[in-house]
Amino acid sequence: MTEAHERKKQPEIVRRALLDCAAQISQEQGLPAVTLQAVADAAHVTKGGLLHHFPNKQALVQAVFHDLLEQLDAQIDELLEDDPDAHGRFTRAYIRAFANADSQGASNWNALPLSSLTDPEMKAMWSDWYASRLARHAETDAGPELGIARYAADGLWLAGLLEYSGVEATGQDVLIEQLISMTRKT
Amino acid sequence: MTEAHERKKQPEIVRRALLDCAAQISQEQGLPAVTLQAVADAAHVTKGGLLHHFPNKQALVQAVFHDLLEQLDAQIDELLEDDPDAHGRFTRAYIRAFANADSQGASNWNALPLSSLTDPEMKAMWSDWYASRLARHAETDAGPELGIARYAADGLWLAGLLEYSGVEATGQDVLIEQLISMTRKT
Repeated sequence: MTEAHERKKQPEIVRRALLDCAAQISQEQGLPAVTLQAVADAAHVTKGGLLHHFPNKQALVQAVFHDLLEQLDAQIDELLEDDPDAHGRFTRAYIRAFANADSQGASNWNALPLSSLTDPEMKAMWSDWYASRLARHAETDAGPELGIARYAADGLWLAGLLEYSGVEATGQDVLIEQLISMTRKT
Repeated sequence: MTEAHERKKQPEIVRRALLDCAAQISQEQGLPAVTLQAVADAAHVTKGGLLHHFPNKQALVQAVFHDLLEQLDAQIDELLEDDPDAHGRFTRAYIRAFANADSQGASNWNALPLSSLTDPEMKAMWSDWYASRLARHAETDAGPELGIARYAADGLWLAGLLEYSGVEATGQDVLIEQLISMTRKT
């Protein structure tokens, strides 16, 4: 059997390859380069095989976004487990997860440009995820100071994406540790 | 003389009308709707008249961005004049200017979607403006705490644009006042 025949039996592996290839193409060449044909070619799948998983580009890009959100969620769970302090635990994990996303560069959140975030369904995915996390961590992560720390993490991420973070005299690492220390105040 | 004839003598007024119309169309219908013809029609100018000022859409959108930056800069100067405290003065003005941009909604920064900010020239315009402001206010606005307050203002603005600010339990106004109070710590 050819490789393509073997993979017919492993739809999850094909789906994973398509998502990874789409994210990689977007990261390297920008969102316009993410055509169904280019993603199918990169994943060594026929266009028909791709269409079985994703009926159009929007569905594919939304799936990439959803996948990134799941990765973020899993990373935050790991960081939560490693944190012995209750107060501000989710906020610290959120800050560290975005700091990692920034330093990893090639993978993760920089794979999708900001423009895609203006898609209503992706905006809703983000809001729903964020709201459910805030609800789940209401006992440890309420209050304006922790909200500000999270917004500052968003701002740092945005500055990295728009490439003006280098303009600040204070280095990113110092700012992140300062943000973490903000979460420990009560 | 017709209105069009009169306006030939007032290129600055025509340019102003074109920028305002482009910003309004972008705000109301999104950036793809900002075609040269649509902007010319809205400003009651011929397409040739528009091309005299802006050779293409990219030049027009960059000019809108530059114009928004000048408005922000002027607004920050006003806020600086009204602020009796030296420490953190620029940071407070920056926070308030973005808070205003958010509440004004229809005008100002929400006119250009985030996607346009990924244009290299617009990114450079922003970085240059921000760097020159930070240099000018180095005596009053250095240090990580003020940097974080500015990043949090960016994050608040982003959350408004992506419509997830409502997810936070703490209201925007409270967060902004908390940010302002952060700038007063030494």
